[in-house]
Amino acid sequence: MDKLLFGVAYYDEYMPYERLDKDVAMMKEAGINVVRIAESTWSTVEPQDGTFDFSHIDRVLNAMHKAGIYVIVGTPTYAVPTWLVRMYPDVLATTPQGQNRYGPRQNMDIVNTHFRFHAERVIRKIMEHVKDHPAIIGYQVDNETKHYNTTGANVQKLFVDYMKEKYKSLDVVNKTYGLDYWSNRINSWEDFPSTVGTINASLSSEFATFQRKMVTDYLAWQAAIVNEYKRPGQFVTQNFDFEWRGYSYGIQPDVDHFAAAKALDIAGVDIYHPTQSQLSGTEISFGGDVARSMKVDASNRGKNYLVLETEAQGFPQWVPYPGQLRLQAFSHLASGASMLEYWHWHSIHNSAETYWKGLLSHDFEPNPTYEEAKTIGKDFARLSPNLVNLKRTNSVAMLFSNQALTGFNAFSFGWGAREKYNDVLRPMYDALYHMNIGVDFVDPSSTNLENYKLLIVPALYAASDALLQRLNQFVKNGGHIVYTFKSGFSDENVKVRTTPQPGIIGEACGITYSQFTIPQQVSLKNDPYQVGKDNNVVKTWMELITPTTAKVLAYYDHPVWGKYAAVTENTFGKGMATYIGFMTSDAVLRKILEDASRKAKVWGPDQQITFPLITKSGVNQQGKTIHYYFNYSAASGTVTYPYKDGKELLTNESIANDKPIKLDAWGVKIVEEN
Amino acid sequence: MDKLLFGVAYYDEYMPYERLDKDVAMMKEAGINVVRIAESTWSTVEPQDGTFDFSHIDRVLNAMHKAGIYVIVGTPTYAVPTWLVRMYPDVLATTPQGQNRYGPRQNMDIVNTHFRFHAERVIRKIMEHVKDHPAIIGYQVDNETKHYNTTGANVQKLFVDYMKEKYKSLDVVNKTYGLDYWSNRINSWEDFPSTVGTINASLSSEFATFQRKMVTDYLAWQAAIVNEYKRPGQFVTQNFDFEWRGYSYGIQPDVDHFAAAKALDIAGVDIYHPTQSQLSGTEISFGGDVARSMKVDASNRGKNYLVLETEAQGFPQWVPYPGQLRLQAFSHLASGASMLEYWHWHSIHNSAETYWKGLLSHDFEPNPTYEEAKTIGKDFARLSPNLVNLKRTNSVAMLFSNQALTGFNAFSFGWGAREKYNDVLRPMYDALYHMNIGVDFVDPSSTNLENYKLLIVPALYAASDALLQRLNQFVKNGGHIVYTFKSGFSDENVKVRTTPQPGIIGEACGITYSQFTIPQQVSLKNDPYQVGKDNNVVKTWMELITPTTAKVLAYYDHPVWGKYAAVTENTFGKGMATYIGFMTSDAVLRKILEDASRKAKVWGPDQQITFPLITKSGVNQQGKTIHYYFNYSAASGTVTYPYKDGKELLTNESIANDKPIKLDAWGVKIVEEN
Amino acid sequence: MDKLLFGVAYYDEYMPYERLDKDVAMMKEAGINVVRIAESTWSTVEPQDGTFDFSHIDRVLNAMHKAGIYVIVGTPTYAVPTWLVRMYPDVLATTPQGQNRYGPRQNMDIVNTHFRFHAERVIRKIMEHVKDHPAIIGYQVDNETKHYNTTGANVQKLFVDYMKEKYKSLDVVNKTYGLDYWSNRINSWEDFPSTVGTINASLSSEFATFQRKMVTDYLAWQAAIVNEYKRPGQFVTQNFDFEWRGYSYGIQPDVDHFAAAKALDIAGVDIYHPTQSQLSGTEISFGGDVARSMKVDASNRGKNYLVLETEAQGFPQWVPYPGQLRLQAFSHLASGASMLEYWHWHSIHNSAETYWKGLLSHDFEPNPTYEEAKTIGKDFARLSPNLVNLKRTNSVAMLFSNQALTGFNAFSFGWGAREKYNDVLRPMYDALYHMNIGVDFVDPSSTNLENYKLLIVPALYAASDALLQRLNQFVKNGGHIVYTFKSGFSDENVKVRTTPQPGIIGEACGITYSQFTIPQQVSLKNDPYQVGKDNNVVKTWMELITPTTAKVLAYYDHPVWGKYAAVTENTFGKGMATYIGFMTSDAVLRKILEDASRKAKVWGPDQQITFPLITKSGVNQQGKTIHYYFNYSAASGTVTYPYKDGKELLTNESIANDKPIKLDAWGVKIVEEN
Repeated sequence: MDKLLFGVAYYDEYMPYERLDKDVAMMKEAGINVVRIAESTWSTVEPQDGTFDFSHIDRVLNAMHKAGIYVIVGTPTYAVPTWLVRMYPDVLATTPQGQNRYGPRQNMDIVNTHFRFHAERVIRKIMEHVKDHPAIIGYQVDNETKHYNTTGANVQKLFVDYMKEKYKSLDVVNKTYGLDYWSNRINSWEDFPSTVGTINASLSSEFATFQRKMVTDYLAWQAAIVNEYKRPGQFVTQNFDFEWRGYSYGIQPDVDHFAAAKALDIAGVDIYHPTQSQLSGTEISFGGDVARSMKVDASNRGKNYLVLETEAQGFPQWVPYPGQLRLQAFSHLASGASMLEYWHWHSIHNSAETYWKGLLSHDFEPNPTYEEAKTIGKDFARLSPNLVNLKRTNSVAMLFSNQALTGFNAFSFGWGAREKYNDVLRPMYDALYHMNIGVDFVDPSSTNLENYKLLIVPALYAASDALLQRLNQFVKNGGHIVYTFKSGFSDENVKVRTTPQPGIIGEACGITYSQFTIPQQVSLKNDPYQVGKDNNVVKTWMELITPTTAKVLAYYDHPVWGKYAAVTENTFGKGMATYIGFMTSDAVLRKILEDASRKAKVWGPDQQITFPLITKSGVNQQGKTIHYYFNYSAASGTVTYPYKDGKELLTNESIANDKPIKLDAWGVKIVEEN
Repeated sequence: MDKLLFGVAYYDEYMPYERLDKDVAMMKEAGINVVRIAESTWSTVEPQDGTFDFSHIDRVLNAMHKAGIYVIVGTPTYAVPTWLVRMYPDVLATTPQGQNRYGPRQNMDIVNTHFRFHAERVIRKIMEHVKDHPAIIGYQVDNETKHYNTTGANVQKLFVDYMKEKYKSLDVVNKTYGLDYWSNRINSWEDFPSTVGTINASLSSEFATFQRKMVTDYLAWQAAIVNEYKRPGQFVTQNFDFEWRGYSYGIQPDVDHFAAAKALDIAGVDIYHPTQSQLSGTEISFGGDVARSMKVDASNRGKNYLVLETEAQGFPQWVPYPGQLRLQAFSHLASGASMLEYWHWHSIHNSAETYWKGLLSHDFEPNPTYEEAKTIGKDFARLSPNLVNLKRTNSVAMLFSNQALTGFNAFSFGWGAREKYNDVLRPMYDALYHMNIGVDFVDPSSTNLENYKLLIVPALYAASDALLQRLNQFVKNGGHIVYTFKSGFSDENVKVRTTPQPGIIGEACGITYSQFTIPQQVSLKNDPYQVGKDNNVVKTWMELITPTTAKVLAYYDHPVWGKYAAVTENTFGKGMATYIGFMTSDAVLRKILEDASRKAKVWGPDQQITFPLITKSGVNQQGKTIHYYFNYSAASGTVTYPYKDGKELLTNESIANDKPIKLDAWGVKIVEEN
Repeated sequence: MDKLLFGVAYYDEYMPYERLDKDVAMMKEAGINVVRIAESTWSTVEPQDGTFDFSHIDRVLNAMHKAGIYVIVGTPTYAVPTWLVRMYPDVLATTPQGQNRYGPRQNMDIVNTHFRFHAERVIRKIMEHVKDHPAIIGYQVDNETKHYNTTGANVQKLFVDYMKEKYKSLDVVNKTYGLDYWSNRINSWEDFPSTVGTINASLSSEFATFQRKMVTDYLAWQAAIVNEYKRPGQFVTQNFDFEWRGYSYGIQPDVDHFAAAKALDIAGVDIYHPTQSQLSGTEISFGGDVARSMKVDASNRGKNYLVLETEAQGFPQWVPYPGQLRLQAFSHLASGASMLEYWHWHSIHNSAETYWKGLLSHDFEPNPTYEEAKTIGKDFARLSPNLVNLKRTNSVAMLFSNQALTGFNAFSFGWGAREKYNDVLRPMYDALYHMNIGVDFVDPSSTNLENYKLLIVPALYAASDALLQRLNQFVKNGGHIVYTFKSGFSDENVKVRTTPQPGIIGEACGITYSQFTIPQQVSLKNDPYQVGKDNNVVKTWMELITPTTAKVLAYYDHPVWGKYAAVTENTFGKGMATYIGFMTSDAVLRKILEDASRKAKVWGPDQQITFPLITKSGVNQQGKTIHYYFNYSAASGTVTYPYKDGKELLTNESIANDKPIKLDAWGVKIVEEN
């Protein structure tokens, strides 16, 4: 980006009365310099089969251009029009719960040929129409795309084709997936039953992989169409989202983000999170770190990304306290965002998201949230040269894997367990965030593991021999890895390894086990992390570990299981591997990760600061180092500035090394080193 | 009615052995003078298509007539026979969950033509057969009729016809309902998708209106058939019921009671409620007030009604304590009931309601409940001239609206909220009940608003401009209104108003707001209602109100939201409007309503008495005023009698002004002014 | 059995690599002398329609035979192959939730003709192939067979045929089942609606009876096929299971165990239960007592049985503490098991039961559980002559009834109640277990009631007049019965009796009632069982009992219900009947049962010992009495040995009368009287 972008999603189609000029004027007043339009408006753009009406797009493009506001045009395909469903009812996906009904967005079968035919036509028509408009800086293909669990007969057929292609022989499938179990053996391709009912996690996990591939392919297909029309300098992006637990929680199970991002020019995400007294910045940081890692630059480091959606007011419970909208905005920049766009400009007067409020309320009048946005717009404009395109360089990475996620979630911690993969991953991320340790994300396809000193590996449940050997090699070469329980347990086909556990990584970790159980009133012997009784707990899962070459950092405290190790570390080659055999409390986890970070030599001055005071650093376009300081609390706070003298950009005050910086409630300071 | 009616539902069809003479004798002994028969007995009356057998009806009519017991004959249509379903499977309604199965009652599609054809035929056959029988005083059409969420293709077709008729143009529908959102726009009537899947609350609320209209039309259709046969002096009624939460809780969402009652001669209801230590009389009072308001007399005041069903023993947990059956019986009369009928005479030996026990247990022997009923029968007979056809005249009315209910419930308090419209309405009703403030009910169709000094308006979420302007005018003319949060928020199409909130009523209320949130640890500043810490709480929802002309009665207590008003009152013209911006505790609500009642000058001597001591008054047929006193507790109580000297009718004791009246546990006293 | 059998389920088909010789060697080392094979391997045995492959069976039979290990061959029918479902999709059962999907076991329609044809063919092919193999000692037909709620059109047709056959006339059905209610009357066999939607518990209970009959018939059909091939001395068994609540909890509602067992030579069961700190032995004892009672010997006493499956490691939370595997093993023997077989040998590497771990973990290496099994194998071999075929003779029996269970569960304790029949039965069983009172089970078909001094009869809700008269006669003849609430309430058609309750048994019990309610803050007057405030509670249900001839043992303590009896006893003829009118605490129940046991003269020296110390006795093949002593706790314990001098078999120590026997944590001792 050539400058910081500050924007909103804008829907001229939804307006209850003529608003365009007034809205543009209010946008300008707020410093808004980009809008996203047109996604999810298929029924307006193509009101009947083959009849097109670009009037809303045209008038918005023209008005924005006149006002000097950039436009991102979205393809409209993530919500299908009524006529398409009437003509081709099979456009609605069949899921394990039956065929979808008309009404919601994202109810279609993304591999349905009628859908694809009409989606392509409407995209091409729009592109042909808008491609020369000067207001447009880029395109978003579809929106929050997933596979929506489409599992009809056509999908099953594609899956069987995929399996034939991948395995050639059913004997291999039967053996690899253990299909002899419960008479599930498939002895002829014709017999291949729908995966919908399968109780075989090897098969269902492969189907999940196939489903994610459908998303990757679908986005690549759309991007290729748009690429035919886009001008040099324009970008194609997608609005990726995260596992949703009422807010953006964790790794998205239904999309392989790194694979899907390959077809795009720049990564885009939406990030939604609690505010008011629950505002912590964690989701902004997490979502940003994932988004930044989706695409890497020439040095194999993450790139800047777009926040295509985040809340202004959002849910009723998210109306921001004074200062929070600013704090959030700069937090996105500190993670490497080059654009911040609110969903949405105005609150919508009908339908599902009536209570997902925009920057404006339903009355279109200025309100406290809008007033605060005006100050952000002003600061973004003024500080854009200093803040845009921040480069971050981290020494720590988290290794996530959708293959591991799917396999882990198939079994979790046993019948009826509520916890999932992200329940293991997020506490590790949160602990690092609280210690101000910056992280990137890598997945099994990443080629840049060697950039890092320390890898954090939660629940790498399903993984190929090659990946695990590569991780062993990473340690041997001097890297440090922290593994949790269940890592290395099964191969990439969710077949449990037939060797003592944790299989291949047992070598680097210097441990072995063959039994595990659910802890009941188990703690760690002698409270080794000094966290006190309430925190010194072994939760949910415990592996009965025996060290081979490892040093035991903690033993279980239990009359029967007390002889087994709970946390170990092992020197292997030039590196070290830490293994955590149980579900920890947050306090214990933080101590383990602090210990590993110190040993991996990624512990520095930023670690003197802890949550709710947060710092993020990077290098700007002029090569100067920028230090952000955030206060995620209602009480003011102070940090001691440990770097070269610099200037606080919001206030223009000088900041000297080793001197205190005061942070107001929900406050932000930005220091540029001289 | 010419006398107080005391009765039971009676099913000769269900008897395990010949009982009729014995049952009639036991009824006579209990003072029972009316029975309801025949509803839900279609398969007995018409055992095969076109074959009729009236023997059960005949023998009961004859036996009752001989014994001097009146009979209400129910049409049998609310449970369909097996042969009808075999012949026309489409008689079973298709709902969003699929097609209904045979077995339960109320599983049919009330607009299905096969159902209608056969229902009409069996009704006409019964009417032709019984119309001249002297035992019959009236007819009940169907039973607890609702639309049972029938949503099959035929219903959708009728709905689209209804929409065409109402709106003519789809452009209007698209605009009014905001269908451009998520590509839901309908550009051709042929494209109109089933409403079952819609996420548009404007559309689903209109569909709900249409569904309630189906009920109104269906009951009018049945009543018209019966009217062809009924004799002068006979009535047609329906057994309406309420929102069911294990007992009769609130406004019935699926029926427009006032509209549906127009086709009937007299309102009828069933009222079921907890007893034992939970007996409070609230549901008897609430259900009675709604029923009495269903039809108005020449002076635009509510009329007497029939309690067609209430429990004798009911659920196992409802077996009444000694005295409670009497307390309940007179409570119904005090609300204006002219008839009290138990469901049912004998406990049924098979099937779903085996544990919904009648006046008799399964053994048909006298039991304590039956013994107590005998005393009621005796008192009803003796006091009938004093108590029948009581006229009640209230100064306070609650304005309810099924349109508001549907719109409110579509969003409630946000994703995952449990509360519904009745959770706002009932606490207001209960507070008034506890203060012995008698209320009527009005709905948007009512023409008698001007009868009242004080209107209580819970959550009038969806309302037309005309209704809100009328309410403003009501205040201007000297009336008092108490509104809660969310009132005035959207128009009659569940489209949020584009003006500052609360829209049109903002003028009378003298307030404005554009933001709202979910309270977290919020109370009212300085405990203005003196209710103590536990009760001084802001729950569930809060609007961030700024007064324009209003006086602030309470502010929120919160570090950020403390500048906004929570409760306001505004003098407007000759009247006053109170606005409550949040979900209150019961204690705060009572204080607000007491304050408003005093200001509206509806506070009088009855308000010296408070729950569990309850009083209700009215004027009897001789023009004398009757005062009922009830003790809804296990401890005895005393009230000071504030009216003209009179006579306690149960004991014949004289009662002097300003003298105490003692009430036993679960006791009742009835004073007739001299 | 000629010796104690100790075994595992073994699946050569599932092996990730060639294991057979190694596995046999490890089995021999553990003393394993029997394996069960082949059940659920249809797709391996018959990979395509009519193509058979017995190689896995052959190689296992040969290897086992060579090693001197017996084999039980299972028919493979409880999991269907993919090709069968592709060819005949109707093989998958249609249940009230729709048609089953392919994937899980037990998804088929056991009366489907395509299923039956192919099941018979594969069974015959296997039998022809293996019938002469010397390793085979017996056959298991199917596995954990139930009806899987198959309710498709074909099942409905069979049910109507069954009803025609049973009742001849629909008039009888309508009357008996009360089908006039809610117009459910059936006036023509053609009209008979699917029972799936019925709300009539008489009809649904008869359907449940019919469903259980389908299981009985299906197992008899399989057994008859196998019987054509089996050699003299070989047995046919079935692996029955229990109501599953995460472990083997109670009476199996879907199978009439006693009826189904008639077609078998020996009873078999699986028993799964919690371990670690929750190990109590209750399920081992309960399941064993039921299994032993399934078939009776010439003296009308229960026979020895096979434990075809129980856990080694099982669920992660069940990994046994040291000593527990031994404790469990001998507990099975003490209840009369002649065989103990773990499910399964090795933990499975893919699919649903990956975390249901076997004797070996996934790594096939010796582990602590396997090591402990080796000691069991050794002791079993050494002590087999002393311990095999233990005969137990009890004076107490529990009368259970699947008819009562179904009827009770249809209503339970009212709308929304969670409790079921087994929630009444199990606490009674547990109380007896805790007091070391040995019990057998009888059901309404049992002809050996007169063997017992004391019958425990929980919630005999639905029962024929004949059964109840027989129970009255049992008392009259000198027996003692303890009944709970709801016994005798309805006839065998779930029609409530029209007499005062508890109907026919009221005569023996000397009581009557016609009302019942749900207790709220009710206790027993004056804490008659001296159990203290927390235990002296009346829960869930209470009948308002008036004694006719009974003595009242306890009254309710409640301001209104205090005049009614809660527990009564009545001398009737030479015997006595105790009646419990409410749901008790465990403490009260134990006191009532202790009292009844003393009065029934079944109280003896074993009752000096109480849980967690457990004792079981029996007579071995040499006619010597064996006393087992178990310690189900982590603390050591001591019992005083009250019998003739003997020898502790595990240690060979002499044990003298009246001397202490010390039991380690989770310890076991076995005394053989001299």
